[in-house]
Amino acid sequence: MKKIAILGSTGSIGTQTLDVVDMHPELFQVEGLAAGGNAELLIEQTKRYKPKKVSVGSKELADYIAPLIPAGTQVFHGKEGLVEIAAATEADTVVTAVVGSLGLESTLAAIEAGKQIGLANKETLVTAGHIVTSKAAAKGVSLLPVDSEHSAIFQCLNGEKREQLLGITLTASGGSFRDLTREQLKEVTVEDALKHPNWSMGSKITIDSATMVNKGLEVIEAHWLFGLPYDQINVVLHPESIIHSFVEFEDTSIIAQLGNPDMRVPIQYALTYPDRLPSQATRLSLAQVGKLNFREMDMERFPCLRMAYESGKLGGTAPTAFNAANEIAVARFLKGEISFLQIEYTIEKILEKHSNIQNPSLEEILDADETSRKLANELRF
Amino acid sequence: MKKIAILGSTGSIGTQTLDVVDMHPELFQVEGLAAGGNAELLIEQTKRYKPKKVSVGSKELADYIAPLIPAGTQVFHGKEGLVEIAAATEADTVVTAVVGSLGLESTLAAIEAGKQIGLANKETLVTAGHIVTSKAAAKGVSLLPVDSEHSAIFQCLNGEKREQLLGITLTASGGSFRDLTREQLKEVTVEDALKHPNWSMGSKITIDSATMVNKGLEVIEAHWLFGLPYDQINVVLHPESIIHSFVEFEDTSIIAQLGNPDMRVPIQYALTYPDRLPSQATRLSLAQVGKLNFREMDMERFPCLRMAYESGKLGGTAPTAFNAANEIAVARFLKGEISFLQIEYTIEKILEKHSNIQNPSLEEILDADETSRKLANELRF
Repeated sequence: MKKIAILGSTGSIGTQTLDVVDMHPELFQVEGLAAGGNAELLIEQTKRYKPKKVSVGSKELADYIAPLIPAGTQVFHGKEGLVEIAAATEADTVVTAVVGSLGLESTLAAIEAGKQIGLANKETLVTAGHIVTSKAAAKGVSLLPVDSEHSAIFQCLNGEKREQLLGITLTASGGSFRDLTREQLKEVTVEDALKHPNWSMGSKITIDSATMVNKGLEVIEAHWLFGLPYDQINVVLHPESIIHSFVEFEDTSIIAQLGNPDMRVPIQYALTYPDRLPSQATRLSLAQVGKLNFREMDMERFPCLRMAYESGKLGGTAPTAFNAANEIAVARFLKGEISFLQIEYTIEKILEKHSNIQNPSLEEILDADETSRKLANELRF
Repeated sequence: MKKIAILGSTGSIGTQTLDVVDMHPELFQVEGLAAGGNAELLIEQTKRYKPKKVSVGSKELADYIAPLIPAGTQVFHGKEGLVEIAAATEADTVVTAVVGSLGLESTLAAIEAGKQIGLANKETLVTAGHIVTSKAAAKGVSLLPVDSEHSAIFQCLNGEKREQLLGITLTASGGSFRDLTREQLKEVTVEDALKHPNWSMGSKITIDSATMVNKGLEVIEAHWLFGLPYDQINVVLHPESIIHSFVEFEDTSIIAQLGNPDMRVPIQYALTYPDRLPSQATRLSLAQVGKLNFREMDMERFPCLRMAYESGKLGGTAPTAFNAANEIAVARFLKGEISFLQIEYTIEKILEKHSNIQNPSLEEILDADETSRKLANELRF
């Protein structure tokens, strides 16, 4: 029986993690669930999985749900509540699926408490990769990737020697606007942007897929997760999202992981590694798919990916600024405050203004994050 | 330093094995080379690699080459010579790359002598899989696949648990005639058949690719090599030969091995396993390839594959009859005695006439082989 806690249980990854639990009820016990504002779903989840602790975004929500859930469940809230679910349950594995840099402190708390991490919050590694990976190593904690691309890389490295790796390649679907020119991008709407061709995901990550910021964050995440320099991390456009990513070895052999796009597969793999168990996903028939397409990634067309590489190579607080600027820009785009292309202009401006600090402390990271957010919010076009 | 012997050193796999030796001269020492009729090339190879023992097809050839090679090299010939190179050198690995069922006795002799096997002679497993695999297990000898498809499967299984495997899929380019209808096949020539779209190989295997017999033999080989029932072994048409084969696990994850078609990669992997070393092969760029295509395998269009599955499932001496009939039919086709489609008619007829013996001894296999060859040679259309 594996005991798990989920940070972000009402989001896309959180609910799919619970789907995996449903598939193997004899294997998993849910110890803690943390949500943000979706009180109704958390109440339902609490009734069903009977975790010992839950947390919500605010005191008000905590007070609201307390009388509506089973008596055995303690209710927490806010940042402290998230840390409670991350670190102070009997879970041996914590799935970190909160969106954005909010995941950092709770992930660090979970690592500190010796929990295995099912890492779905990429911003954690993007903003504080050196701190998170060194702390995980010191605590002997595994960071098991939940992102489909990183899970693919992780799977392809099974039984192989890291020093014989030539490089890795993340595949990118290209997102909702992959076939539009930059000219056409000027007029796209929020609604258009939220239609991802292959994956059903939360709105933040769907926008990030359209801007290619998501792939950029994944590149930085891969740098930390697999300890690879940026020139060994490649991206290729693959509209079908069937090859989830691949690795190349010194003998020119490429090992790839494929499947129908279904997040329950990498989520389950992170929870059952090194074992593979039956999944709810539909089996892939390549004959039925017929064709797989690949195109060189165009850094002119997708400047956010170029800026992600640049930030990653700069290191220090640059990726934090990149990520913070993007989080604010996406929020503003979703609210209708800025246009789609202004997301990338925001990132560009913030990176220009950013004073990079190398080897930053957690405080310096949080500072850089806050400053960048403030600047991004104040930008007028 | 790895000591190797090569059975079939002047053929396509043999010469490419020596390419791999050239790439890593510090790693390999050639102890023995066995060839058939290509005396000139064997002389050249002997001067270059200075093996202690060589063998040729006949006494005449042995007498011819003896004075032309370095004095330190002993010369053998015929079936006994092949067994000498297989079993009586200091090699720790023997690459079995002779064509056809000729490889069986020498492979068994190598296993008996405790050599690791780089298995390029698929007929060995096709005709005597139960004997070869049980003897290899008893002797603690590894059968390392050299065929690109089986090497791919072998690589994809690295670090994975066999019991969590759902199945494997061999990819098939479709060979020289994949886009012809059965009607069009009536008129094809030997010259047409020898033009393989992706791989540069010997003439027997090139014809076998066009008839899909090669894929059938590979299916039977995979059955023995990976201990899988036939319903877990699939074939998919993949014209580009970029995905060399793949495996599917219980969680629906597919792990595939990819690369440009270059036999030096699987040959080298068999020689350096579990390590991967730099290779002469050109690195694969999926963006440059652009598209990978897949089609359901059509058993009506390729009845030889259907008959291979049927023979494999029947077991006993049926695969021996299948293989023997094919070897004779291909030889007759190459000599212009029969037409392309008469290759499959030959196999069909021989299988019809064959009295299957279950769990056959080596003698019964050799008998079945001889009988089937005789019948196949006598067939008149």
